[in-house]
Amino acid sequence: MNVDIKMLAKHLRLSISTVSRALRDSYEISAKTKQRVKEMAAQLNYQPNPYASSLRKNKSKTIAVVIPEITNNFFALAINGIEYISQEKKYHVLIYLTHESLLKEIEVANHLQNGRVDGVLLSLSAETNKYDHLVNLKATGIPVVFFDRICESIPGSCITTDDFEGGFAATEHLILCKCKKIAYLDLSRHLSISSKRMQGYVAALNKHNIHVDERLIMQFSNDVSANEEVITDALDSSDRPDGIFASVEKLAIASYNVCEKLKINIPEQVKIIGFSNLEISSLLNPSLSTITQPAYEIGKQAALQLLRYLEKKNMTDVHETIILKSTLIPRGSTKVTSFK
Amino acid sequence: MNVDIKMLAKHLRLSISTVSRALRDSYEISAKTKQRVKEMAAQLNYQPNPYASSLRKNKSKTIAVVIPEITNNFFALAINGIEYISQEKKYHVLIYLTHESLLKEIEVANHLQNGRVDGVLLSLSAETNKYDHLVNLKATGIPVVFFDRICESIPGSCITTDDFEGGFAATEHLILCKCKKIAYLDLSRHLSISSKRMQGYVAALNKHNIHVDERLIMQFSNDVSANEEVITDALDSSDRPDGIFASVEKLAIASYNVCEKLKINIPEQVKIIGFSNLEISSLLNPSLSTITQPAYEIGKQAALQLLRYLEKKNMTDVHETIILKSTLIPRGSTKVTSFK
Repeated sequence: MNVDIKMLAKHLRLSISTVSRALRDSYEISAKTKQRVKEMAAQLNYQPNPYASSLRKNKSKTIAVVIPEITNNFFALAINGIEYISQEKKYHVLIYLTHESLLKEIEVANHLQNGRVDGVLLSLSAETNKYDHLVNLKATGIPVVFFDRICESIPGSCITTDDFEGGFAATEHLILCKCKKIAYLDLSRHLSISSKRMQGYVAALNKHNIHVDERLIMQFSNDVSANEEVITDALDSSDRPDGIFASVEKLAIASYNVCEKLKINIPEQVKIIGFSNLEISSLLNPSLSTITQPAYEIGKQAALQLLRYLEKKNMTDVHETIILKSTLIPRGSTKVTSFK
Repeated sequence: MNVDIKMLAKHLRLSISTVSRALRDSYEISAKTKQRVKEMAAQLNYQPNPYASSLRKNKSKTIAVVIPEITNNFFALAINGIEYISQEKKYHVLIYLTHESLLKEIEVANHLQNGRVDGVLLSLSAETNKYDHLVNLKATGIPVVFFDRICESIPGSCITTDDFEGGFAATEHLILCKCKKIAYLDLSRHLSISSKRMQGYVAALNKHNIHVDERLIMQFSNDVSANEEVITDALDSSDRPDGIFASVEKLAIASYNVCEKLKINIPEQVKIIGFSNLEISSLLNPSLSTITQPAYEIGKQAALQLLRYLEKKNMTDVHETIILKSTLIPRGSTKVTSFK
């Protein structure tokens, strides 16, 4: 019987990830543990997964991009950046969608273990709150670079933006535009981008001595009509917020839809700003103020990082975090008007 | 040396596609030709591609979706429809982008011949004006279903919309809204959807006794700034069109951008309608009148058609054309105003 990395890990009472890193001589693992792992591997006659080894020779010249959704301008632009670099380096790109589902993400990660691709670029689903599937994927020797929605519990390479600063800038912009009651629309408690953007929101409120009201921090899901109901409940009341900070594009759009339905004037009655890469933000009625991420550049950097790793034979792992800057673009939806 | 289907075709002085269909006993090929092909195959000791045979057993449980671009709401929605059906039938979906490039489409088609997937759903690039790469792909035994931008020169299965009727309805709507000088914005001379939409445009003009002015039929490309220049030239003149029919979404958006820049009022000075699946059409300033295709349903039908074929062992080829209906949704951009 062949001994695989899972059995080896079980014998050693270590995690698959630790064993994998020890075998790859990672600096994160102590010399003592490495020694123990290698002795046990020799004793059990462990052979590295032949598929993974063939991968390391970059036979397929293909990388996978795993993203949560496709009807989102951030990901569409990031993919164009990824494709630009891949094309240059003659790699094929396969795109997998998780539709914001953890189960689907697990399914895709397991599927990718079969050696179909040389490396993976991944942005977590909103539901993802455990990471075994990603640890296992990396343990098979397939490098994974996270972009935007990164995974902080797994060491590795990440490309992201300054989400705290973006959240702070968006909130302070609303405060400077005279908003006193600012709602934060959150996509997921699990995602690093959400929690950092929210930390920025809280920090800006604190700086300006505005009380943080928990009822104004609202949770949303992938369900468009449920989301619009939550926003409707919030806006269809006498003490409604006078500012909305949408942490993702689709929640800004949902807010516009609800305001149209309830005949609430933007920006007179409520001001809206959102993280968004919508190219037609300026054509909306009113034009949407945004925190805009350098989505195309994020895609390029993520692909560069992964391909640099794949082209170098003796790199043990990718370990670099790149943080790119977002930009605040004020437009009509946060304009200060004379009457209110 | 192994004899492949290409050599077999060369010996027979037949096309690869004919030989492939003869070997698969297609009804399209005469009994006489089939006999000739089979005799030559035996004589040359031709062995069918083992990869293609394993494919026919649906080993990979994976289908490819090849689309021209990702920042387009039609394709985003179609993919969601494709994924819905594939998920149900437990197939994986790989998405490939051609970025409207024939070369890239050829590269992807050749790559798919390696047996990576069981079947292919494809929408042609705007540049595609020859089809050998697709004939060759089908000849390896991998079924291809075309959707939206179908290929009329290759027999097979197609899912599309009533593009002629859509083009007619859009143009007649502008005429009924008092437009007398209607421009047609065309993406590609090669695509069936473009030529059908244009035929609808011409038919509506004819019905209403409006002269077809060739200068109002404008060609566009994948280059956003070049496109905006062409529209600027057309709108920045004294005898500018009073109606614009954009055959694809991005040309409607480009028209909005140019009108904003030139301070031309929509709909007072120019009315605009476009084929579009933009979910936020109603939030634009002004809201955009559209011909909206059932994109999600097109995706579902295309996937159903392909998977039905893959699940049936003895089907020789897919040969069905499904035409779904689009809808005219009049909004602010074609509103008749009292002054003009």
